[in-house]
Amino acid sequence: MITLASDFGTPYPAAMKGVLLQRTDARLVDVAHDFPQQDVRTAAFWLREVLPYFPPATHLVVVDPGVGTERNAIVLRAGDHTLVGPDNGVLLPAARRLAGSTDRLESGAIDEDALEPVEPTTPTGSMADSSGNADRSSQRRSNTFHGRDVFAPAAAAVHEADTGALDSLEWLEPTPIAADLEFPDPVLEDERAAGEVLVVDDFGNAITNVPGSYLDGRERVAANGDPVPVGETFAAVPVGERLATVGSHGYVELDVNRGRGDDAFGLEPGDRVVLEPVSDGPD
Amino acid sequence: MITLASDFGTPYPAAMKGVLLQRTDARLVDVAHDFPQQDVRTAAFWLREVLPYFPPATHLVVVDPGVGTERNAIVLRAGDHTLVGPDNGVLLPAARRLAGSTDRLESGAIDEDALEPVEPTTPTGSMADSSGNADRSSQRRSNTFHGRDVFAPAAAAVHEADTGALDSLEWLEPTPIAADLEFPDPVLEDERAAGEVLVVDDFGNAITNVPGSYLDGRERVAANGDPVPVGETFAAVPVGERLATVGSHGYVELDVNRGRGDDAFGLEPGDRVVLEPVSDGPD
Amino acid sequence: MITLASDFGTPYPAAMKGVLLQRTDARLVDVAHDFPQQDVRTAAFWLREVLPYFPPATHLVVVDPGVGTERNAIVLRAGDHTLVGPDNGVLLPAARRLAGSTDRLESGAIDEDALEPVEPTTPTGSMADSSGNADRSSQRRSNTFHGRDVFAPAAAAVHEADTGALDSLEWLEPTPIAADLEFPDPVLEDERAAGEVLVVDDFGNAITNVPGSYLDGRERVAANGDPVPVGETFAAVPVGERLATVGSHGYVELDVNRGRGDDAFGLEPGDRVVLEPVSDGPD
Repeated sequence: MITLASDFGTPYPAAMKGVLLQRTDARLVDVAHDFPQQDVRTAAFWLREVLPYFPPATHLVVVDPGVGTERNAIVLRAGDHTLVGPDNGVLLPAARRLAGSTDRLESGAIDEDALEPVEPTTPTGSMADSSGNADRSSQRRSNTFHGRDVFAPAAAAVHEADTGALDSLEWLEPTPIAADLEFPDPVLEDERAAGEVLVVDDFGNAITNVPGSYLDGRERVAANGDPVPVGETFAAVPVGERLATVGSHGYVELDVNRGRGDDAFGLEPGDRVVLEPVSDGPD
Repeated sequence: MITLASDFGTPYPAAMKGVLLQRTDARLVDVAHDFPQQDVRTAAFWLREVLPYFPPATHLVVVDPGVGTERNAIVLRAGDHTLVGPDNGVLLPAARRLAGSTDRLESGAIDEDALEPVEPTTPTGSMADSSGNADRSSQRRSNTFHGRDVFAPAAAAVHEADTGALDSLEWLEPTPIAADLEFPDPVLEDERAAGEVLVVDDFGNAITNVPGSYLDGRERVAANGDPVPVGETFAAVPVGERLATVGSHGYVELDVNRGRGDDAFGLEPGDRVVLEPVSDGPD
Repeated sequence: MITLASDFGTPYPAAMKGVLLQRTDARLVDVAHDFPQQDVRTAAFWLREVLPYFPPATHLVVVDPGVGTERNAIVLRAGDHTLVGPDNGVLLPAARRLAGSTDRLESGAIDEDALEPVEPTTPTGSMADSSGNADRSSQRRSNTFHGRDVFAPAAAAVHEADTGALDSLEWLEPTPIAADLEFPDPVLEDERAAGEVLVVDDFGNAITNVPGSYLDGRERVAANGDPVPVGETFAAVPVGERLATVGSHGYVELDVNRGRGDDAFGLEPGDRVVLEPVSDGPD
């Protein structure tokens, strides 16, 4: 099984799928192709939350603002899973979760020239294409689409090798990871949690880095000074009302029942969020 | 085969797929994940129109504004198909179409505690995760993402059981359906049809509940008093012009050739539409 | 393997998949379903760029503003690939690329009445559906959704026939292609290239028809009189800055590093682009 995740929109992911299917019969599963463009951090968050629900698989990830630069293309072995993508941190939170810790990750850098090159179908005689559109560039590998030309071939090769041992892959060079990425922990003291918004999901839920356990036993909480009810479900408050709840990832979310929490709370990713107890008096 | 439909956007459907693929090798087919959020009615319409084109399958549907409340999670057996989702009406129009009538539906409520719990990959030692992000919540099942934690496991179990007999599933309790959902019939008298807009599709076509046969033999029709040509195809009128036609679901649609009917007619879902004959004089 | 491409958004593609899966066990792969609506030209460009990366397959393409009119529904045999779609030019650039030239294409027109008709599930007794919604139209084939009712059955039949010889398909009539579509070549003289924007991708990159080789050996170039650096990668210029580069399709693109080239250059598809050398003096 190979999962695919990118910020490509369409139709670029289809070119990756074509390359994969030239080289493997693996099942292909899309994780997402609409991650915010070139937003390594948001993609890293979602991959960490989603990939652990998959059975052992090869995960192809391309959110790659540095495509074509000196950053390595890497393969990480994490528990029973293998991740393929750019060495810009996007793979690390998921890989660490899958492996248990950074220490348990095995990594290698892809030698692009040792992979079988990607070639589109070019039948004999195509240079005579009456459109005059053949032979547009002599380069064998693009500088702007390594998803198609580097990462997809590597993911197919990893899958086909069917091994947990990266050192058996001759096109991979043992190389330490250059770019890590960690999400900040909140500061928890006494009854106060000072954290931040990690991401906003498609429903507008503002997902913080404060552990859901902060809400245990509380009926109300002040979010940046503003008191809101704590609910176990969205429907704990009337439609259109705000609440704090524990999201499916285990963090405190600031939400609106059938509405957008980010708008109602005025929050976006990276914004500071302070949660405090609220007295039971009138607000 | 398991089909998936939701209002989740991305990447939440991928978590459902991961859970499914932990438990089954079934083919997975996406119906849609961009249904209008928490719009049970629109999702119910599209499922009724699309699912009957599938071969016998398990259909996993999650449009669930009441997630975490007392509403049941249900399984419906409808003809050769099985539907899994919340008991809020979203499954009913499709199930009734697949079974032939409500009387022929078999239903059960999912006992969430009897399903094998969903567990993300957590390797030995993960509590020592240097990110400090482990153990964010002690709850085993989220209150906000039953798609992942309840419906996907149930859909996988239904598929793997490979039986049309719901009473053989020990995690299912025979339970009548609580929430029905029906689309209104239009009032047809003499030459007049008084109906409503059921949904607007991605092209802007305003799909009404008036049977397409209303247009038989008519060259023009008045829609809310406004005369428009009847066309068998969009291209029956010039680009940018309005028309009434019979859509692929068999209903009268109010459309614009290569444009948006909803804008041109000023219609949205739920709006009343009266169709009447129009005299052949000048308009 | 059957690939699917359309401008349908959702959930119409799912109806096509249901019809396909009634008739074949083929692997289904989505190319894109969000091509700009009724924009034959843009879809034709992307299909030409993406399909050659696939192994031999049946490609189902529905961007069809003339649905229901006299335009033929056609099948093209192009090298080891087969394309199914409307005869409006959308298939031609991809087919020519796959076959090598127009001369090598074999074509046939689909006899819609010779295909096994598409029937949704309608259990015995469904006319008694208490919703009153049955029997909405007596037509067997819609005039507005040939993707479901004509092209999907034809694609399934092509795949199942498993033959490169179109003349063995009795529901296909040898028929020349009516509608061709070619992308213009740029005018290259001396050091000047006069071309146009073919498409803008989801990142805002303005993709021209000027071959990437035009940039060979140049450090700067004037785009419609405006000097910009030539970069091998997006990251060759600071974030937010403009550049000219060679895209993954081999053409000159006008881009912004982590931004939208179309906005920065004021370009949209069809706009004229003149590239000229720029003196190395101060700009």
